[in-house]
Amino acid sequence: MTHATMLDHGLFGRLRRDAGLGWDAYVGHPFVRALGAGTLPEAAFRNYLVQDYLFLIQFARAYALAGYKSSSLAELRAAGAAMIGIVDVEMPLHVGYCRSWGLSEADMEATPEAMQTVAYTRFVLDRGLSGDRLDLDVALAPCIVGYAEIATMLKAHPATKLDGNPYATWIETYAGPEYQTLAQAAVDSLERTGAARGGHARYPDLLRTFRTATALETEFWQMSL
Amino acid sequence: MTHATMLDHGLFGRLRRDAGLGWDAYVGHPFVRALGAGTLPEAAFRNYLVQDYLFLIQFARAYALAGYKSSSLAELRAAGAAMIGIVDVEMPLHVGYCRSWGLSEADMEATPEAMQTVAYTRFVLDRGLSGDRLDLDVALAPCIVGYAEIATMLKAHPATKLDGNPYATWIETYAGPEYQTLAQAAVDSLERTGAARGGHARYPDLLRTFRTATALETEFWQMSL
Amino acid sequence: MTHATMLDHGLFGRLRRDAGLGWDAYVGHPFVRALGAGTLPEAAFRNYLVQDYLFLIQFARAYALAGYKSSSLAELRAAGAAMIGIVDVEMPLHVGYCRSWGLSEADMEATPEAMQTVAYTRFVLDRGLSGDRLDLDVALAPCIVGYAEIATMLKAHPATKLDGNPYATWIETYAGPEYQTLAQAAVDSLERTGAARGGHARYPDLLRTFRTATALETEFWQMSL
Amino acid sequence: MTHATMLDHGLFGRLRRDAGLGWDAYVGHPFVRALGAGTLPEAAFRNYLVQDYLFLIQFARAYALAGYKSSSLAELRAAGAAMIGIVDVEMPLHVGYCRSWGLSEADMEATPEAMQTVAYTRFVLDRGLSGDRLDLDVALAPCIVGYAEIATMLKAHPATKLDGNPYATWIETYAGPEYQTLAQAAVDSLERTGAARGGHARYPDLLRTFRTATALETEFWQMSL
Repeated sequence: MTHATMLDHGLFGRLRRDAGLGWDAYVGHPFVRALGAGTLPEAAFRNYLVQDYLFLIQFARAYALAGYKSSSLAELRAAGAAMIGIVDVEMPLHVGYCRSWGLSEADMEATPEAMQTVAYTRFVLDRGLSGDRLDLDVALAPCIVGYAEIATMLKAHPATKLDGNPYATWIETYAGPEYQTLAQAAVDSLERTGAARGGHARYPDLLRTFRTATALETEFWQMSL
Repeated sequence: MTHATMLDHGLFGRLRRDAGLGWDAYVGHPFVRALGAGTLPEAAFRNYLVQDYLFLIQFARAYALAGYKSSSLAELRAAGAAMIGIVDVEMPLHVGYCRSWGLSEADMEATPEAMQTVAYTRFVLDRGLSGDRLDLDVALAPCIVGYAEIATMLKAHPATKLDGNPYATWIETYAGPEYQTLAQAAVDSLERTGAARGGHARYPDLLRTFRTATALETEFWQMSL
Repeated sequence: MTHATMLDHGLFGRLRRDAGLGWDAYVGHPFVRALGAGTLPEAAFRNYLVQDYLFLIQFARAYALAGYKSSSLAELRAAGAAMIGIVDVEMPLHVGYCRSWGLSEADMEATPEAMQTVAYTRFVLDRGLSGDRLDLDVALAPCIVGYAEIATMLKAHPATKLDGNPYATWIETYAGPEYQTLAQAAVDSLERTGAARGGHARYPDLLRTFRTATALETEFWQMSL
Repeated sequence: MTHATMLDHGLFGRLRRDAGLGWDAYVGHPFVRALGAGTLPEAAFRNYLVQDYLFLIQFARAYALAGYKSSSLAELRAAGAAMIGIVDVEMPLHVGYCRSWGLSEADMEATPEAMQTVAYTRFVLDRGLSGDRLDLDVALAPCIVGYAEIATMLKAHPATKLDGNPYATWIETYAGPEYQTLAQAAVDSLERTGAARGGHARYPDLLRTFRTATALETEFWQMSL
């Protein structure tokens, strides 16, 4: 399935479409555009990297929670793989990348979480615990799938400059096949959970969750500026 | 709505019907029949009363959990009222009744929970936390609504003896209008949550929860014998 | 126990003292001072009132969670009373007060939660679920006890003007005996849980929770300005 | 550290000692002795294997929960590794072993959980959610560490027959270095969590959890007979 269809179909496609201007504000945020143009101030990017490190710890907790909320071995395995993927693959990569920006893991760990980091991550965890696995998957989606869309869009955008852009590695990583596959897996999981636990009546509530999560992701960009 | 229609319609009616022989084994358990006939050994009833006391504490926790899982003020209010209803009304009544059977609250508190008590209550709490409010309501239903059905059935049954039956008060309490109203409120809440969060695809899983909860309630009777 | 001693002793006193400048920034925030002087813009107060309404719903959920996390009947009863206290007493009072400021309950319910509201409330809920009852009580304390301290301080402060101050009712309510008793009960509960589940080794982590909660409360004032 | 010291020292050693006769009844259960002597009826062992399969799924959920309840990257990593260890290593081994006893994975998945399986696993999950990571670790310990003690004891016991014993593989697996290392890691984790979150006042409650978990494990053996 190509990127375009992944975002247009099914439950995810419907949520993204109905999030409307809120979704556009997130994926087209000035932070994103400046990243593509290579004009983002270094301090903003460093601030973002530190908070993203703290964010990933909470995201791994959210996948652990998905494991607790699993009812089949297949679901458990997928949640465990995602959790280990963040902790053992994504975080070491992130830490290595941050080092190239002069940020040590110890420094990042010692930095307090920004309110925006707290707001999005704890909202996701609470949706997951107060709702079910579907509420959790919907709350997680704007982050995982949004990054895939943003990076793909940036790569194709005429205003994007990759040559000499200090943020080119960021764009290439999230536009690359490994991350795109991971995002597709998240969409697939959302669609499966949606088919098993969704239903017409739940949609307005799921959309509310998706919109709030998208708005909180937008605040995350805003904070970094 | 009369008792008969409450049990036949909607999501609850469907779950009860589909639980089939498992439901019949619960509501028509030898413990229940001996209670109606007044032939239940006193030791069995006392054992039941003590475990029911310990059970109610966990049940109040389950309603507290329903409060945490609420998304509207109306849901919160209903959960809070149910929780306070157990702790401030049902438990003092139960304690008073137990006293008439020679059981002090301190003795009951000091008794360890039987495995059967642990199994049903913790199953309910885990369904509530790993699933959503609907999973929780479905796991709670066999207890609350089953007691209403059992007492109503006993009162109408030709084999039931109320005169001189030491368990007549138990039957009258659960067949009485106050408890019947409470059970009806639980069914209404289940139907509302089912309408808001249910859906065709969820039914097999909900039925599995309902069946397990019913089987664990049956074990609770069995333990007391 | 007088107000002064309630805040100086025990675990709460130690947390408050060690939160240091963070605590001072919260209780002496410009929003608070402007409230006392009667100079707070009406729009800021109305904004605060709406978000406080949304906040109280989440706070009632936090007390419901405390009920789930209770292990004794006494703890359950206290949590249930606090939950019902918010839903049936505090919220109707709040709604009535808001009406006098031209805010209807329907309007408030339809307003989205501000990020600051999300951040503090979901942080509290997550501390409660990932930690134990003591972590939850510590995360709740800055709000409940802080309001008692703020109102008492304002009443005694030379810069405070009660005559003709549109916010005098707010000050009188939180400085009044009813709220002060409620705050004292929260401190007492924290001290009891601290005695039962605390310990030297947990203190740094509890202080971190207290500091984060205090900082998020400060952001709540900041948002309203 | 040798096996003997692992069980005698620290928090685990104290809990095990204070569980007293309850612990002895678990590790010296007739099921265990018949396993060592090779006299256990095959039907009992097969029953045990099926329920142990269902048990492991819930155990993986418990480690996922430990991941959610983690506050550091190291804790998250350990919980994730344990979860993946169960799902990707222990369960396939178990499934392979069960196949040699004529049990297919599909059959095991289709078998309902016994009440004893529900009771122990949901008790653990509820202790984990209502308490903190230490409560969870204490509830998990009787299973993980008990199996290591049982297998080591059986290997050394004069009444044990390994030659021609159909259960020799079971004994060798749990007495082997791989499982013993895993059990030691669980003890180490418990000791670390105990040091970070324990305290004199919590001990009676932790012992209550340990005793209940041990009693529920004993019921698990009893069920299989």
